[in-house]
Amino acid sequence: MSRRVLVIGIGMGDPAALTLRAVEAINRADVFVLLDKGEAAAELIAMREAILAAHRRAPWRTVTLASPARGQEGRDTSGGYRAGVEAWHGARAALLARAIAEEVPEGGTGALLVWGDPMLYDSTLRVLERAAGMGVPFEVEVVPGITAVQALCAAHRMPLNGIGENVEVTTGRRVAQATPAAPAFVVLLDDGAGLAALMARGWDGQVWWGAYLGTKDEMLLAGRLMEVGAEVLRRRAEARARKGWVMDVWLGRDAAGRPSHSA
Amino acid sequence: MSRRVLVIGIGMGDPAALTLRAVEAINRADVFVLLDKGEAAAELIAMREAILAAHRRAPWRTVTLASPARGQEGRDTSGGYRAGVEAWHGARAALLARAIAEEVPEGGTGALLVWGDPMLYDSTLRVLERAAGMGVPFEVEVVPGITAVQALCAAHRMPLNGIGENVEVTTGRRVAQATPAAPAFVVLLDDGAGLAALMARGWDGQVWWGAYLGTKDEMLLAGRLMEVGAEVLRRRAEARARKGWVMDVWLGRDAAGRPSHSA
Ligand SMILES: C[S@@+](CC[C@H](N)C(=O)[O-])C[C@H]1O[C@@H](n2cnc3c(N)ncnc32)[C@H](O)[C@@H]1O
Ligand SMILES: C[S@@+](CC[C@H](N)C(=O)[O-])C[C@H]1O[C@@H](n2cnc3c(N)ncnc32)[C@H](O)[C@@H]1O
Repeated sequence: MSRRVLVIGIGMGDPAALTLRAVEAINRADVFVLLDKGEAAAELIAMREAILAAHRRAPWRTVTLASPARGQEGRDTSGGYRAGVEAWHGARAALLARAIAEEVPEGGTGALLVWGDPMLYDSTLRVLERAAGMGVPFEVEVVPGITAVQALCAAHRMPLNGIGENVEVTTGRRVAQATPAAPAFVVLLDDGAGLAALMARGWDGQVWWGAYLGTKDEMLLAGRLMEVGAEVLRRRAEARARKGWVMDVWLGRDAAGRPSHSA
Repeated sequence: MSRRVLVIGIGMGDPAALTLRAVEAINRADVFVLLDKGEAAAELIAMREAILAAHRRAPWRTVTLASPARGQEGRDTSGGYRAGVEAWHGARAALLARAIAEEVPEGGTGALLVWGDPMLYDSTLRVLERAAGMGVPFEVEVVPGITAVQALCAAHRMPLNGIGENVEVTTGRRVAQATPAAPAFVVLLDDGAGLAALMARGWDGQVWWGAYLGTKDEMLLAGRLMEVGAEVLRRRAEARARKGWVMDVWLGRDAAGRPSHSA
């Protein structure tokens, strides 16, 4: 009679972006554990509640974990970045292990709802793996969800990769340090510095940008970086000032002999 | 009263892997266009029919396009690889343009069901873009689906990326030529030569492998390449001989100072 923890990818906030398996998993959970963080917290928690309200057939119980002092996952540019994130994961793992022991009944099922898909730039699986060594035993089941990368490509009706080509999935921090070598790259966790660095380097490729994908505030822009880059940064800053937070993602494709049509 | 073409990602074959939006889109289509190819065709077409049978509420009509002589997308090692694929796309685009003009009524909706997500190593969006210049005008709408990469990570309960790190999405053909520079890489369209090349090079990292993901034949294996590589190739060849086709994907992660736990 082991405990089970479901890690459920919920896509970008639109309740219709969930898979049927995610809906089924939402209805199997005895308790939802909220492990939240970040500036966008209030609005994201509201979207999560909307998803439960749309899909959960019975009443539900949520346990919200107090957030330990946190690092800036994916944002910090200091050398101790990874060590800081790992210490923070340790603190969250301890909270999570206790919540699983105390709030999930033996033989019962807890669930964590994760933005997009848990495999992509998300700490839940890592934190759970550490929590597994700290308290009662439990099994983990992962339900994939639609990622920001997929929402971006779908909105622009764009393939991620060129024919037979490779693609790099990377962060704004990395792009700010060096231009990816892959002919196409998709950039998450960019505070604008990655895009601005490519502009400063005179990178002559195309970009497909999207913010608040899958929500009513969705914004899209695409074109040669030289032509649309400044506008992307302007809209990004303006939206961030207005809403207090912004989530955006972009695809870059170098210009090397690749007409836009067959790219 | 323009025509509309829905490009619907259907995940890996499990009807429960579809999103609610994909189910809604399946019920909006007037006609389904089948643009098929590949060794696995018969079984894949059967899975597609099973998905329609599970989710389509009204009877449906399918138009199957005769397949033009085809290149070996993602497999050919010759220099004319891309040119060959592009010529093949042109022939398919002409067939598709005619089918849209003749089979989709004005103001009506056609649909193409795509394995996984249309953004990832799939030619449908490229072929549609070419078809748009050939016949009647139409609008394209993309509905994302769960990819092989997500099914792999979910089955192994593994994140794709290391903390703040980049990931390369690539093909077996590319890995056979050179080991990716990224600390993690996920390999599609590998006929075994990519994995075998890493073994031959003595690459000392970990792999997470999965075949027939999301189907009743799902196979999983993980470990250090040096320890599990031969077994992966053995199981792959055995399954391929038994079923006549195999679809597999794997994630590689280099060993550089990265204990498996925090990787
Ligand atoms: C911590 S990562 C989580 C990614 C998520 N697990 C996924 O599968 O997409 C957060 C990043 O995802 C991207 N992102 C998340 N939601 C987004 C949205 N609605 N629109 C655009 N980008 C989004 C942004 O790049 C953001 O910095
Ligand atoms: C032409 S690509 C299509 C990818 C698809 N659009 C997606 O989103 O996953 C085909 C490759 O996807 C991977 N693949 C597709 N289905 C799979 C499955 N059921 N199990 C494992 N790998 C699969 C394999 O690497 C295969 O060579």
